[in-house]
Amino acid sequence: MYETTRMITLRDADAAGVLFFARYLALAHDVYEEMMAERGLGLGKVLRELPYGLPIAHAECDYCMPLWVGDTVTIRLRVEELKRRSFTVVFEFLVEDGRTAATCRTVHVPVDRATGKPIPLPEELIAALTRGA
Amino acid sequence: MYETTRMITLRDADAAGVLFFARYLALAHDVYEEMMAERGLGLGKVLRELPYGLPIAHAECDYCMPLWVGDTVTIRLRVEELKRRSFTVVFEFLVEDGRTAATCRTVHVPVDRATGKPIPLPEELIAALTRGA
Amino acid sequence: MYETTRMITLRDADAAGVLFFARYLALAHDVYEEMMAERGLGLGKVLRELPYGLPIAHAECDYCMPLWVGDTVTIRLRVEELKRRSFTVVFEFLVEDGRTAATCRTVHVPVDRATGKPIPLPEELIAALTRGA
Amino acid sequence: MYETTRMITLRDADAAGVLFFARYLALAHDVYEEMMAERGLGLGKVLRELPYGLPIAHAECDYCMPLWVGDTVTIRLRVEELKRRSFTVVFEFLVEDGRTAATCRTVHVPVDRATGKPIPLPEELIAALTRGA
Repeated sequence: MYETTRMITLRDADAAGVLFFARYLALAHDVYEEMMAERGLGLGKVLRELPYGLPIAHAECDYCMPLWVGDTVTIRLRVEELKRRSFTVVFEFLVEDGRTAATCRTVHVPVDRATGKPIPLPEELIAALTRGA
Repeated sequence: MYETTRMITLRDADAAGVLFFARYLALAHDVYEEMMAERGLGLGKVLRELPYGLPIAHAECDYCMPLWVGDTVTIRLRVEELKRRSFTVVFEFLVEDGRTAATCRTVHVPVDRATGKPIPLPEELIAALTRGA
Repeated sequence: MYETTRMITLRDADAAGVLFFARYLALAHDVYEEMMAERGLGLGKVLRELPYGLPIAHAECDYCMPLWVGDTVTIRLRVEELKRRSFTVVFEFLVEDGRTAATCRTVHVPVDRATGKPIPLPEELIAALTRGA
Repeated sequence: MYETTRMITLRDADAAGVLFFARYLALAHDVYEEMMAERGLGLGKVLRELPYGLPIAHAECDYCMPLWVGDTVTIRLRVEELKRRSFTVVFEFLVEDGRTAATCRTVHVPVDRATGKPIPLPEELIAALTRGA
């Protein structure tokens, strides 16, 4: 598990003053990148040093209540499923009283950059995803 | 059905040079807004004149192949399901040879602005969603 | 000169229901990319086939009046200045009655990808920028 | 002066793997919002409780060197000028060795929401902008 907080800012709001529905995934991925960087597998390293990429094959969001500009939200990340060739991350957006405002889920598939083919999850990736779990 | 084309531009790319996964939903919603504006129910009107909003309760994407910066993509919108209190829109992202690059789905729930409660789909909304279907 | 129209959509709005100030530059660049693609020098080609990049060294915006979600805006692009090692593009955002809502300006500097050094404007770039001027 | 750090994430990168030029302003505004929230004048409060807005009349950026995905950048905010009816904020983007990667500048003009007219800088705004200066 990994947890961080964010303030909803103007760039991510829509005209109703709430977090725009497509930006939950962007914020969620920010948190995933932050966790992976802390665990030694930052995106800069993946992009520039490793022979595979981690494209997302599926993403989904359930929205329960709006998040307003200026709100502070806790984003809690959990690796839900580690399969041989994919992993699933769940993100919960929690407001201050602990209620869930939204849940997102992303499915990642490691792909060899040279061949474009899916590969088994590399060791260092499994290690980063499960550290402290 | 409604269909339009878009070029993938730099603002929507990620560091791999492809459409960033969270931006499919933003592009999809652009197309939905364009269709609704052509059908007399543009977002400006909804926000400023109508007593209800149309928040999204669920969104999902399946990504089949990357879309590169500079690619032209056809986005085909179809209203999949009209329920009493919600409707579902499906967006297919098609590349030039007709293959599907991605499919997105959004579930919209009309909500009374005064009470915050879901309401049955208003007549003019059903009319706009089903025109030419 | 090159001109196109855009509808302001939800993804680009801020909580006041108007185009977010930082997104004028993104929209402006969309139009620049569209023009260059029509003139045979699309960004996909630049990124994947040409030995230089076109980073932006300076950008600025003057905002005169808000643009609301649902508004249709004309964006007019003009290459203002072609120097030996840079060029400047001006974008005017015009509302329906012809008034200027905003003016943006971007300064582009061609850079050799191998050395990272500025280079004189390549021939095909000058041709694309001045076509029909 | 106010200072914070950010990691450049995928959502803000462009296809070259660097911070997209229009997103510097979005990041800069994030930092401005963070500072104002800490000083008791968060955007949520401005939008929902105060009788004026703070639209931006001018913005500009000078880009000196690219910021790569995964880079950690320090963003240093300084209120450069407090005039009777406007104020200017300068943002410096600093990389780890202290060099300036970019400088942005935004000019804000308080506007009465009812009349749409510029107003003198309110007391609590001056207090928040100058605290600790």
